[in-house]
Amino acid sequence: MAAKSSDVLEKIVSLAKRRGFVFQSSEIYGGLNGCWDYGSLGVELLKNLKEEWWKFMTYRDDVEGLDASILMHPRTWEASGHIENFTDPLIDCKQCKARFRLDILADSIAAKKQKKLLEAASPKLSTHPMFGEGNPYNSLSEIELAELFNALLESKEHQLALIEELNCPSCGNKGTFTLPRNFNLMFKTFVGPVEDSGSVVYLRPETAQGIFVNFLNVQTSARQKVPFGIAQIGKAFRNEINTKYFLFRTREFEQMEMQFFVNPNADKQWYDYWKAERLQWFKDLGMSSDKLRYHDHPSDKLAHYAKEATDIEYLFPFGWGEIEGIHNRTNFDLSRHEQFSGKSMKYFDEESKEKFTPFIIETSAGASRSFMAFLVDSYREETVNDELRVVLKLHPRLAPIKAAILPLVNKDGMPEYSRKLEADLRKRYKVFFDDKGAVGRRYRRQDEAGTPFAITVDTDTMSSNTVTVRERDSMQQERIDASKVSEYLFEKLTR
Amino acid sequence: MAAKSSDVLEKIVSLAKRRGFVFQSSEIYGGLNGCWDYGSLGVELLKNLKEEWWKFMTYRDDVEGLDASILMHPRTWEASGHIENFTDPLIDCKQCKARFRLDILADSIAAKKQKKLLEAASPKLSTHPMFGEGNPYNSLSEIELAELFNALLESKEHQLALIEELNCPSCGNKGTFTLPRNFNLMFKTFVGPVEDSGSVVYLRPETAQGIFVNFLNVQTSARQKVPFGIAQIGKAFRNEINTKYFLFRTREFEQMEMQFFVNPNADKQWYDYWKAERLQWFKDLGMSSDKLRYHDHPSDKLAHYAKEATDIEYLFPFGWGEIEGIHNRTNFDLSRHEQFSGKSMKYFDEESKEKFTPFIIETSAGASRSFMAFLVDSYREETVNDELRVVLKLHPRLAPIKAAILPLVNKDGMPEYSRKLEADLRKRYKVFFDDKGAVGRRYRRQDEAGTPFAITVDTDTMSSNTVTVRERDSMQQERIDASKVSEYLFEKLTR
Repeated sequence: MAAKSSDVLEKIVSLAKRRGFVFQSSEIYGGLNGCWDYGSLGVELLKNLKEEWWKFMTYRDDVEGLDASILMHPRTWEASGHIENFTDPLIDCKQCKARFRLDILADSIAAKKQKKLLEAASPKLSTHPMFGEGNPYNSLSEIELAELFNALLESKEHQLALIEELNCPSCGNKGTFTLPRNFNLMFKTFVGPVEDSGSVVYLRPETAQGIFVNFLNVQTSARQKVPFGIAQIGKAFRNEINTKYFLFRTREFEQMEMQFFVNPNADKQWYDYWKAERLQWFKDLGMSSDKLRYHDHPSDKLAHYAKEATDIEYLFPFGWGEIEGIHNRTNFDLSRHEQFSGKSMKYFDEESKEKFTPFIIETSAGASRSFMAFLVDSYREETVNDELRVVLKLHPRLAPIKAAILPLVNKDGMPEYSRKLEADLRKRYKVFFDDKGAVGRRYRRQDEAGTPFAITVDTDTMSSNTVTVRERDSMQQERIDASKVSEYLFEKLTR
Repeated sequence: MAAKSSDVLEKIVSLAKRRGFVFQSSEIYGGLNGCWDYGSLGVELLKNLKEEWWKFMTYRDDVEGLDASILMHPRTWEASGHIENFTDPLIDCKQCKARFRLDILADSIAAKKQKKLLEAASPKLSTHPMFGEGNPYNSLSEIELAELFNALLESKEHQLALIEELNCPSCGNKGTFTLPRNFNLMFKTFVGPVEDSGSVVYLRPETAQGIFVNFLNVQTSARQKVPFGIAQIGKAFRNEINTKYFLFRTREFEQMEMQFFVNPNADKQWYDYWKAERLQWFKDLGMSSDKLRYHDHPSDKLAHYAKEATDIEYLFPFGWGEIEGIHNRTNFDLSRHEQFSGKSMKYFDEESKEKFTPFIIETSAGASRSFMAFLVDSYREETVNDELRVVLKLHPRLAPIKAAILPLVNKDGMPEYSRKLEADLRKRYKVFFDDKGAVGRRYRRQDEAGTPFAITVDTDTMSSNTVTVRERDSMQQERIDASKVSEYLFEKLTR
């Protein structure tokens, strides 16, 4: 029985708190919007996920690792374009001082109301190219209407006519909004004791720039030749006005990024290579194929630096959402850093005797978003013997706890035997010991935590030196030699 | 031949850059003071170090992991006392606007000059208890003199008399300094679009508070009973005025903290337990015993929250420096968070039927500082066959690269054979393939990177299916079956 998608997210948020996957940040103080803490099980899942990515991406000849600092020289963000362009449009109500993100405000207006607003504003809108003759909005579908509405709001020339007609969702007054102004999404702070413009630095809004500015340092110290990549996992921060969907859009989050430097004439080949590799990675870790897709960006919607771009999207309970982006960033980044730093970012290819500014193929995955996708994807409700079984069918390599050791009864030397087994396994694996309550309930608790193997120590164990291993998904049990348990786990957990 | 301590640090900083352990942050823009980036080798060493800590601290029944966000509710820092107390004293020169940290400025004044300053200020100093009759500074040793000088500067009542006599190191004028004011070392930023006092949040100056505020969430979700601990690795930030000694005092750094919650009557026992465990951890990873010591804080110098405290210090080239602190923090933290949040932080002990606010035994290690200590400690210069050999004698579990695969000559099927061996090992280990140049030079490059095992594929390999393994420290070689290499490494790398 598949759980209904409508309430799955709510159930997962609740499970996440109850079992210690994710808590609200600073919850005892009412929380901090857009920030989350990973609990005992969550931190292991997140670590395992990052470790899988790290091994997949850097245990190869042509990718080097990096861990750059979160605070960077502010000139970095001039070169990257973030100071100029990394903004959201905001409007304020002059009456009640409430503040809204313009594009989100527009999304919240129903089609019928949008039509009315367009009608009221139409005398001032006729010069817009999408507007044309008469009242074209009468014949538009809801989606086309929303598109027109948003296009008008984005047009500096025409937005005023519409904004004048809007009611403030907070105080209800009409025509009280300011014109939109751009709000930069980077968190800023000050280094040193003086808080002035000369001491401003930013919390990085993406980890990518830490890689770009280190291109020469890494290439030289690792004696790499193009094509090669630099991979990094780390925190990034965005002062989002609207955080939403649990871990999906947050203010503090973690990225797993790899930037691959290539000869400009090999960009297409490497773009296709990484596009395929990265989707396969999610599938190999057990994510449902039918909930994964590419969303290729149409060429007229590409970011200013991109020649080609695709999102890997996962079908969350709230719809398709990006969990990773693969981009051909061209030579934009290195050229800009060359221009702003005065340091040459060109590469001389010994073999072809060419000198060029490498193109960059970027694979940028959200660690926090992937965490959420794996959590959602693994969540199942099943009926077993007329009872509800909630189980996280996480890939064994991702599972927070690898095995539970469950002595069947709390006597006859079973606890001692179990403790010894636990101590042996603990040297290499995160394991859990539980001798409290009925074994059925103990299984259920492990199912809910995603523990792939439950090892039961019973009366036969003591005489035959064997234990029962129960596999989480099939619930099948098999009897194996107690001395072989570590080997058994090793085989299941190694790729 | 041991390297001279005076220039060891310089050599290590240079090696760190050249081989990709550590780069200056945003170096192409002139760097950002107090921030560093970890390169290909550095990121692996840092990861290994953190992983060893994580396994040691959390692969046990009574410690849970956590990964709390860097941004926290600002009330956290009121409760912790950081807003009030986490400050350095600063003075400004009214003439030239230069700013100095008072305690550091005092340190830079020579004993002779200090004596002169005391003499000049003495008419106004006679009421200070350390001053006494006459001119007592005449008979003081240099150290006693510095102590008196600093005590006078710390005294609100007497500092003015001294400050009036100081010359500004920047413009040279005398008596131009303001009175000292306290400068908070937390980096602040603003959440949401409005930059006012209501939206201020801080970059956490320590990871500990993320643990304290999650005490109840973790205890409940993990069904833990006191005594138990919560462990966390993460970044912290301090707006230090004076950064120094490479990775020792930086503005952005990483901590590895474990807070152990105990019954107040068991505090001494657990303090002693963790004090011993934590020192042993550094030794077990190969750090020189004679360069490690405890520095117990005298009872009159304890922090306001501490009942007992010790530092684990390492003998760096610049002197003894703290790499970890073990503190009995009493019930200070939980009591304060109870007071500021209104949520009870008390624990009910089912067995003893007692209700109490747990005491906290803290083990707080610097990941960045430990990284530097291991790097320094492992650095050796040796003379081998009349040539200098630079080698990092890192514990194999810490070493960035576990094995190098070196085909002796680039023909006769050796490269292919070596590539196959490499591919096999790469599934589990970070390995490195090198077929360029003389094998002696290849060994040296691996020595300098700290690679514990070099596997040579030679002409005998092809006929006998054996390889030579060279151990880094002893430089001894042994011939082993090629099919046993993975097992060989596994044994050396597993504790």
